[in-house]
Parts: sequence; C-alpha cells; structure tokens
Amino acid sequence: MTVNVGIIGATGAVGQRLIQLLDPHPDFAIEALTASGSSAGKTYREAAKWRIDAPVPDAVADTEVGETAPEAVPDDIDLVFSSLPSSVGEVVEPALCEAGYVVSSNSSNHRRADDVPLTIPEVNPDHLDLIEVQRDERGWDGALLKNPNCSTITMVPPLAALDDLAGVERVEVATLQAVSGAGYSGVSSTEIIDNAIPYIGREEGKMETETRKLLGTFDGAAVHWHEADISASCNRIPTIDGHLENVWADTAADVSPDEAGAAMTDYPSLDLPSSPDQLIEVFDEPDRPQPRLDRNLGEGMTVSVGGIQETTGGVQFNTLAHNTLRGAAGASVLNGELLLENGYL
Amino acid sequence: MTVNVGIIGATGAVGQRLIQLLDPHPDFAIEALTASGSSAGKTYREAAKWRIDAPVPDAVADTEVGETAPEAVPDDIDLVFSSLPSSVGEVVEPALCEAGYVVSSNSSNHRRADDVPLTIPEVNPDHLDLIEVQRDERGWDGALLKNPNCSTITMVPPLAALDDLAGVERVEVATLQAVSGAGYSGVSSTEIIDNAIPYIGREEGKMETETRKLLGTFDGAAVHWHEADISASCNRIPTIDGHLENVWADTAADVSPDEAGAAMTDYPSLDLPSSPDQLIEVFDEPDRPQPRLDRNLGEGMTVSVGGIQETTGGVQFNTLAHNTLRGAAGASVLNGELLLENGYL
Amino acid sequence: MTVNVGIIGATGAVGQRLIQLLDPHPDFAIEALTASGSSAGKTYREAAKWRIDAPVPDAVADTEVGETAPEAVPDDIDLVFSSLPSSVGEVVEPALCEAGYVVSSNSSNHRRADDVPLTIPEVNPDHLDLIEVQRDERGWDGALLKNPNCSTITMVPPLAALDDLAGVERVEVATLQAVSGAGYSGVSSTEIIDNAIPYIGREEGKMETETRKLLGTFDGAAVHWHEADISASCNRIPTIDGHLENVWADTAADVSPDEAGAAMTDYPSLDLPSSPDQLIEVFDEPDRPQPRLDRNLGEGMTVSVGGIQETTGGVQFNTLAHNTLRGAAGASVLNGELLLENGYL
Amino acid sequence: MTVNVGIIGATGAVGQRLIQLLDPHPDFAIEALTASGSSAGKTYREAAKWRIDAPVPDAVADTEVGETAPEAVPDDIDLVFSSLPSSVGEVVEPALCEAGYVVSSNSSNHRRADDVPLTIPEVNPDHLDLIEVQRDERGWDGALLKNPNCSTITMVPPLAALDDLAGVERVEVATLQAVSGAGYSGVSSTEIIDNAIPYIGREEGKMETETRKLLGTFDGAAVHWHEADISASCNRIPTIDGHLENVWADTAADVSPDEAGAAMTDYPSLDLPSSPDQLIEVFDEPDRPQPRLDRNLGEGMTVSVGGIQETTGGVQFNTLAHNTLRGAAGASVLNGELLLENGYL
Repeated sequence: MTVNVGIIGATGAVGQRLIQLLDPHPDFAIEALTASGSSAGKTYREAAKWRIDAPVPDAVADTEVGETAPEAVPDDIDLVFSSLPSSVGEVVEPALCEAGYVVSSNSSNHRRADDVPLTIPEVNPDHLDLIEVQRDERGWDGALLKNPNCSTITMVPPLAALDDLAGVERVEVATLQAVSGAGYSGVSSTEIIDNAIPYIGREEGKMETETRKLLGTFDGAAVHWHEADISASCNRIPTIDGHLENVWADTAADVSPDEAGAAMTDYPSLDLPSSPDQLIEVFDEPDRPQPRLDRNLGEGMTVSVGGIQETTGGVQFNTLAHNTLRGAAGASVLNGELLLENGYL
Repeated sequence: MTVNVGIIGATGAVGQRLIQLLDPHPDFAIEALTASGSSAGKTYREAAKWRIDAPVPDAVADTEVGETAPEAVPDDIDLVFSSLPSSVGEVVEPALCEAGYVVSSNSSNHRRADDVPLTIPEVNPDHLDLIEVQRDERGWDGALLKNPNCSTITMVPPLAALDDLAGVERVEVATLQAVSGAGYSGVSSTEIIDNAIPYIGREEGKMETETRKLLGTFDGAAVHWHEADISASCNRIPTIDGHLENVWADTAADVSPDEAGAAMTDYPSLDLPSSPDQLIEVFDEPDRPQPRLDRNLGEGMTVSVGGIQETTGGVQFNTLAHNTLRGAAGASVLNGELLLENGYL
Repeated sequence: MTVNVGIIGATGAVGQRLIQLLDPHPDFAIEALTASGSSAGKTYREAAKWRIDAPVPDAVADTEVGETAPEAVPDDIDLVFSSLPSSVGEVVEPALCEAGYVVSSNSSNHRRADDVPLTIPEVNPDHLDLIEVQRDERGWDGALLKNPNCSTITMVPPLAALDDLAGVERVEVATLQAVSGAGYSGVSSTEIIDNAIPYIGREEGKMETETRKLLGTFDGAAVHWHEADISASCNRIPTIDGHLENVWADTAADVSPDEAGAAMTDYPSLDLPSSPDQLIEVFDEPDRPQPRLDRNLGEGMTVSVGGIQETTGGVQFNTLAHNTLRGAAGASVLNGELLLENGYL
Repeated sequence: MTVNVGIIGATGAVGQRLIQLLDPHPDFAIEALTASGSSAGKTYREAAKWRIDAPVPDAVADTEVGETAPEAVPDDIDLVFSSLPSSVGEVVEPALCEAGYVVSSNSSNHRRADDVPLTIPEVNPDHLDLIEVQRDERGWDGALLKNPNCSTITMVPPLAALDDLAGVERVEVATLQAVSGAGYSGVSSTEIIDNAIPYIGREEGKMETETRKLLGTFDGAAVHWHEADISASCNRIPTIDGHLENVWADTAADVSPDEAGAAMTDYPSLDLPSSPDQLIEVFDEPDRPQPRLDRNLGEGMTVSVGGIQETTGGVQFNTLAHNTLRGAAGASVLNGELLLENGYL
C-alpha cells in the first residue's frame, strides 16, 4: 500500500532533497507540492532553482506547485513533509494538524513544545507516542512530529551510545558547518570564501536544548529532559554539504576510547527503508571523517565518528553527518517511516 | 645602530613573511639568506616561489641564497631568524648557537627543552633570562630563543588575561586553521576544497604543552609549567591565512563575560616596533572575529576575540590571529626585538 | 580647495569601496551618504554590513544615512558618486543632474546613451567634453559621467595599447570573474563553492558595446564607436576580488608579443591622485597575473597583463584588474578627479 | 569471458578512478596493480591515499601493489591500463608492448606519434586500426592505444559534431580546469584558494595538437590531421572535478545555434559498456553546464554543452566533462572496451 504524501516548502534546499529521497521511495508517493506565493502556479521545474547534481525527477518536473497554506493540501494526502521557514511553519503546521493531517516536519518551530515529539528513529523511537498526549491536549486528528536541527543530529547518535555506556554529564561541541545548512541563499559567497564565521544565530541554543530532549526519557505522559550540561560553539565554513563537529564529553563512569568506539559501532540501526545498515561508522584513521569524503556514507544517512581520545573527564571525538540528508530531509523521511510502522498513517 | 640579521629557511611560507617584515624594519637589516640545497646559488627571486600579494622587496630580490648550514652564516651577523623544518632546525640551530650566534626561531624543535625560553613578548618576557641558564648549561656564546606554534599563539594572550583575572584551570579548544600554516605545499587543493580535515599531526600536543610553558612561572632557574588541563582538537579548513579558535576555559574564580572582555582589552602591549597598539581586540558583534576580515588587524599582530559567553565552569570565547604574521614570522621578529631591548645582541 | 562629495548607494559592495577610497582622499570630503529606505536614519556603521578587511573609517562611522532620492543630497555637495542598482540609477541620476549636481556614476544605466560620456581617464579622457553636448541637449546644469563595467575595464587598457599599435579588428574574451562583482548578496555560496557559472546576465553585452564606445573617437559632437567585432563569454568563479580574462585580439597589422608587451608597458598613466604610476604591468612569468597575488598592484588601480603569445590573427594575452577598485569604485573616483581637473566642478 | 586487466600507476588520482570503474566492470577483472617504488609491497589500501568519496573496493583493498616495471605484470594479464607520469610511461609502455601486452594508456607520452592511435571511441573509432601499422613498424605483439588529455576530450565531441555539420576552421578555447586534473599533489591549496592560475604547462599545446589528430582522417596507413587552427588558453580554478570550457568555433558553412545544438544532441553514442546513453547533452538554460551540477551526468561519461550562440564566424558555446572520468580513467576504460570489441584482446 502506497502512502500519498505532500511536501510543503518544496523548492528550498531541504525541499529539493525531500524530492530526491521521496521520488524513488518504496512506500511514499509524492502527490502535492507547495511553496511560497511567488512559485505558486508554476511547474516544479520552473519554480525550483534545482541545485542537486542529478536531474529533477520526471515525476515531479511538471507538477504544478501550490501556495503553501492548509487548503492547498488535497484531502487524499496521508502524510505531509514540511520544510518551511519556522515563522511560516509556526502557523501552517498546527492548522494542518487541526485539519487532520499527519505532519513530519523539519522546521524549527514547536521542537521544544512539551507535547510535540522530537525524534531520531534509531535513538528515541519511543518518544513517538507523545502524539497520544498531543492529540488529547490539542484535540487534533492529525499529528505533528519533529526531527531535530542538522547540527544536533550529527552529534546525538554517538552521544546516545556513550550515554548508554557511561552516562554523559557535560558536553562541549564546536561545529564546522556546511553552507547548505543555511538554505540556498543563506550564506553569500562574499561572506564565506577564504573565511569562517564563528556564529550561527540560535543554532547554539538548538543544539543545547534539542540534545537534552532527544536523550531524555518518556514516561508515557511527558519527556524528561536529560540533565547533561551542553555548550555549543557553531561555525560556518566553506563546505557545501556535511557538518563536522569536535565533541568533548565528560562521563559519569570511566570509559576508554576503545570502549567508546565499540559502543558506537554496535549502536543498533533500524529496519526502516531509509535507515542505514550501519548507523555509526567509526574510523580508525585519525584524519577521518571528512565532509567531502564521508558525507555520503550509507547514502548520506550514516553518522561517521573518528579521532576518539581519552580526556581528563571522558572522551573527545569528531563526528560528521550529511546535513541535508541525515540532518534534514532524510531525518523527516525517516520520521515518516516511523509513523507508518507505528500505525499513525 | 642597525643589527645585521640572517634568515635561514628563507624561501618557505614563513621565510617569505620574515622577508616582508624585516625589509622595512627600523633596527634589523637583512644580510644573509639560506635555504635548502636546491635553492643554493640562486638569487632569492629565483629560489623563492613568492606567494605574498606584494612584490619581492628589491633589497633581497637579487641576493644570492646560501645553503642552510652553520658555515653559510657570515660572521658579521648579529641575529639569525630561523624557520626550518624541525628535523633540520634540530641540528643546525644548536650548531649556530655553539658558534656564537643568537637565534630567534620559529621551528618546533627545542620548544619544550628545560633551558630554552619560549616567549610571546607581551605575555612572558621575563622567561627570556632563561638564556642565562642555557648558556651556563650548554657553554654557548650564542643563544636560542623560541616562539610558539601558530595555533598556540592565537589563544595564549586571551588565556593569559583570563588567568590573571580568575585562574584558568581547564581549557578545551577547537581550531579552524588556515592552509598557509602547513607551508606552501603542506595541504593539497584536492584535500581541502569543499572539505575540512579534523586532524593536524602533532599540533594538538603542541598546543597543550606550549600553552602550559608560556603561562608558567620562571623563578630565575627554571620555568614551572602552568597546571591547567588543556585539550585541543585541530582542524584544517579552506582559508588562506588566519587561525580561528573556539575556546572553553574553566576558571577558579567566577568571571562574567564583561569582566573577561575588559581584562583582555586592558591586557598591555609593549613598545617593541612590531607589537601592536592593541594586543587583544575584543569585538561586541557575535559573528566576529572572522579570518578574512580580521586577520590583518594591527598589521597582522593583533589577536582578536569575540563571542564571550558564560558557561557552567567559566567562559567560552573565540579568538583569531594571523598565523604567519602574529603566529610565526611576526612572533620571531618580536622575539628578536625583545632580545635587542634586553641587551642580548 | 576641498570638494564636498556625496555617495548615493553607500552601503553596497561598491559603496563601501567608495568610502574606503574617499575617506583619505586629498581633494574630496565625504559629506553625505544615502542608501535604500531600510538603511535610512541609521548610522553608517549600523546600515552597512561592512565587508572590507579594515575598520569602517571613523569619519563616516556615525554619519546618518539618508534615503536615496534627489532631495536627500544637500545643496553644498559639489560631486555625487553613484553606485545604485541600474533601475534606481535610471531615475535618480537624471533627477540629480537636472537639479544641478555633477554625478560620477558606476551604475550601468545610461552607459550607452549618445550624450553620456563613458570614460577610463587614462584611455579616452577627451570623451569627457561630451558633457557639453549633454548639457545642450538636456538643459542640465549638472552632468552625468559614467565609468564602464568592471569586466570591460579589465581588458580595455591593454586593447587600447594594442589598437594604437596595430589596429584591433576582432576580440574574443573569456572572463573568470570574482563574486564581489555581483554585490554582497549576488552570488550564493551554495552556487559557487566547488563550481563555476558560465553565464552572467547582460555582462557579455556590456563588454561588447562598452568596449567599442570607449575605443571610439569623439569629434566634438558625438562618439563614433570602434568597429571591432567583440565576442565575450563571462564566467563566475570562486574568487573574492579580481577579474581575470583571456583575450584573443586579431589585429590589422602584424604584431609580435614583444611589441605588444612594450606598447602596453609604455601606455601612459595620468597624474590624477588615483591613477597608478604604471597603468599596465606586463609580467614575463607565464602563470601571472593571478587574482589573489596581483589584484592589489598599484593599490588596486594597475591592470596586469601576462602570457602574451602570437596567434594566427594577432595576439593572445591574459589581463587582470581589481573589480571593485579599478573596475568600479576606483573608476568612479578617477572620473571624479578627471571632472575636477577639467573644471567641471 | 572475462578479460584479466592490470593497472600500472594505480595509486594516483586517475589510478583510483580506474579502480572505481573497473571493480564493477562486466568484462574486465583487476588482477594486478603497480605503483612507484615507495608503494611496492604494501596492500593497495596502505599504498593509496584514497580520495574518492566511496570506500576502497573490497576486491582490491588487500591486493599487494607491485613496483611499476614490465616484469611486474603477470603473464595472464590481457590488457594493461596505464596512468603513469609521462616520463615513466615513455619507457615502461613500449617495453610492455614489446613483451606482448596490449596497453590502454592515459599518459601523455606517445600521443602524437604517427603510429599510435589516439581515440575517443564515439568520435574516431576507425583510428584504432592504426595498431596494424604500429605492429608492422615496431614489431610488437602487443599494442599501444592512447586517449587524449582531459581538456581535449571535453571539447572534441561537440567540435566533431560541428565539424560534420559545417566544417570547423578556427577554434579559440578558454578552459576553467579542476584541480584533480593535476593529480593529488599537483596544485597546492595555498596556490588556488581565492585564486585562478592562467597557465597550465604544456596543456595548451596538447589541446591544439591532439584535437587536430582526433578530428583527422585515417586512410589505413596514416592519420591526416585536421587543418583547423586551434588556440587554447588554459586556466586552473578552485573546483575539485569537472573541466568547463568556453569555445569559439569558426565554421566553413553558416550554422545557426539551433542547428549546432541539434547536431550535438544527435551525435551518436556507442553500445560499449562505459559509453553513456547520451554522448552530448545540450542545455537550454544559459547558465549550464556547471561543474558541480553537471559533471556526473551519464555517470561522468556525458559531455555537457550550453550557451550556444551565433558569432560573426560561426558559434560560441560552453562545454563540460568530468576530467577524471570522461577525461581520463573513463576514457581509458572505454578504449579498452573498444579494443575488446574489435578483437585486439
């Protein structure tokens, strides 16, 4: 049985990746596309400034793009993927849920809300049932599910493995983030060539709060956030795709680099269509992972780790993920698959 | 009175910057240049693959380059600037000191030796007198003075200000380093375009040990290293010049971002010709300093700081310095000026 | 005697360069700044996203920015430098001239108009007197003077030298243009990192027509365009500043590379404050000029040429100029100096 | 029937691409690998600094690398792929042919030799039989077949289509070449970041001569070079893969852009395993092809063309090909397939 899906915010950097992932998807069929008013009425090929290094899929090239609004989504859509600016998502997503749609969203609005599940399916799939609480409280027939920010997703799987092993108490993380994370027009070339920018507005706060929610525990009624103290420093660098992060993690129990690496390697993946065979790939070479060489591992859904070393308080390691695949569009698709597997569609 | 100086290792990235700084210098006159055997006998213009965006100074363009060896340095040279591969410096520098030359060196050999001063003139000028101990122990008429590694120099001035204010106990630092730090052929373009490399061999160890020596105390007989626990993670990124670093510093006493910023701003510079008016420039804008915009502040000798924030254990901040000026050639020239002011020439 | 100048369009990439050049200028004093409505009322420091690697000059940092409109320019302004989007310049510049202001403009509107002089002062200063025709026809007290497009300026000086020597009949030119030529937001980093774009809208036409007007002859009544057949292919590449161009020029008379190089080297500069000592620097090294190494020659006002070779029909050579200095802001300032010297202020 | 192949020069940029293409090849099985002396005796994984964004194929990872020399190639090898520095190829390749091996080579030595076929299989497959002449003259049991330089391959297919249509008489071409074309260490990052280099030693001559040989006619005894006058200007830019070229082609007969585009689109491909379905893809969008977006078309074996415009003498267009796939490793593999199809193996 095929699930009819719509993509709202279909022309941006993440929207294009959603198209790329959903076009060949075994369970999902793209049936509606929306974008901002200036794109409405055009074909997708005309509306999108396509920036992926493969042609626009034939199945959507001539699809007419609607204007993003609840009424632009046809009734027979079972699942809506959302990749909107958060100020738009803030308004449109609840309206869709109210109207009965199930929404898997990459937008940053609502991520911290008490009754909105924030999930990485391999890490905290049990949080999904927070939807029951959400429906009770909001009276929605639909549902709103969020995936985290791309820089958060890059570090949480290895931190989850480490937390299970030895208890994470304090985290410092410095990021080296690709320009695609800011969208197609987010970072001007005059800003970033031969340069780095040591600040990404609100990104640091997202990494600190989302990580604690993802690593928290759900007791059937609420998510109790993890107590770890997390401090992030975010940098933009001149790479196209792939966020690289240097992480220091202090742990409650002593842990050797070998033990940490084994826990990460053994951290289980899932059987969902978009989940990679190996969730966390641990490199022995000290100079890996690197964005250009390793961002496409597991079709962009594997998280790579390397350089694990002992520190006074725990371990230091580097982690990398493809920010618009594992970190955004792929995260939303995976959440959609989790919804399907758990009977929410 | 003009001091006659020689430059050994004159054709590399740091050697070229030494030429650029010493050509117009008020006290130093370039009188000898050496390089590896393949350059010997050529004019400097022929020998150096000049990569600075200003012409080769006329005064050295036609100077014949000698082969690096103690005997290649004329007797009337008062001060030798050294920028050699460490394996060469290891052999040549002691031989020069033995032969009576005073050497201001940027090479990494001998930096950790008990009787070799490692100085940033504005930070620990008193360590210079370790030369007396050195001469006693080694029986040298000459002397060997070292400046630290470029990535170390970038963070030590603000850390010194913070240490004076509140006592630094623990430091985590992630670096975003420019390619010129590896020399002209150190990083291939095929490695670094659209990429970042999360490992620079031996760099992390240098940052950890050199910082502790620089912040240590000299009691007239020995330098007692600072006790701070320092953990560095070094990354190469596609920038030409300027190392940017994210620093977390835990302090013994509580310190607010404002107090930390004031201590850095007020940290005194020196009256040496190459010392900038303002040693540490503190930015209010959260997205500064940036390598391309700020590396040339104070003619490349100012260290820039920004993004100072409170953390659980102390403060987080970003720091930037021009790696081949403040971090290498300028550091050696400044050390030469310190030697002159203190009567060692 | 100091000339009071205003800058309209003061916050963009070229506007910032105008500030940088005019702040220390011996004859011109900045007395008014305007920008688009969103900047009006702010100080210049607040309004401009300053992207030059030197601080905002103190003299303008706290100047209030007015909104671009004829009435925003005070009466005591003698000369207006304009760097507006052409659609805005189309309207505002004639209104200013009507109101009696002399305008030196970098905007692309009006460049092809029969009664508007388009000048590179070292190449066709005599075209300036087309202003007399302009005033007659339009009834203006003011005057409108244009400098060409940055990519045109890069090739015209060497072509002018060659035309004087041997008569240029046909030109093919491929450009490798820096991102700053498109303004601060003109080229997204997601478009250009690890990429090149073989098309710059309308740029090819500008190179073809402006070159013929610049190399044309002015008979006191009209400019007769040069007859050369010019074909341009324009590419954007990931460089910050400096346009590099490969030029093939067929000539009427035979010309050797040595003769061509000598004619370029000997092509005279002017005594205007912003004119470089050497207008065209000819390199012997085949791999020069290069954007990063040579764009700042002559404080960014020298045009560099290299790789001169014989072809079947004439010569092939490469040429480089700093696109926002020689190619834009510096070109306008130089035109302002030409106006002053010729008594138009 | 599987053909046993060896790769000599297996660890470089092109060697790695040969591995990538041959590992899954339907007809060829990798049975021997050689490299320079410093790699000999190591496993391939140890010897190669693998730079492709996919893991080293398991089938070769643990293969022992031999030292490049005729005797290092086992007897049961039917076809040798060569990607050696030309000074090494000059010596080793003839020795292999003498010893009876058939060699498909990407190295630049021997490309201009009268009795060595230089082929792009879709363009001049009939030149292959020059091997008969070669064997007669040299007394070889083996054979030597060459593919052209990467920058040549990028422009020859569209020129061949145009030549068939209207007769090409004169060509000017400016290239924007990726750094991988110089091998892994060929271009230092300090040379090329924020820069372009308007000269690639000997590249211009290769484009001029190889193009004429490829477009020449083979009469069973010799190749008669095409008479077109070709002038190339070669530039290196900061892209990883993909050579973009601006071409001006004067033609004997008048030709419209539409006719030129149709001739290119219709230019036939072959049924060889590595030949793409579409040899030349013609874009309508004026800003395509672009290296990052279009280099992987047809799995890196399609040549892309765009921006076709009329000029005084013919047409101007832009062309792009993946320089280490279509332009090097893929070209050699395709030549190997041509040898197999024509009974030379």
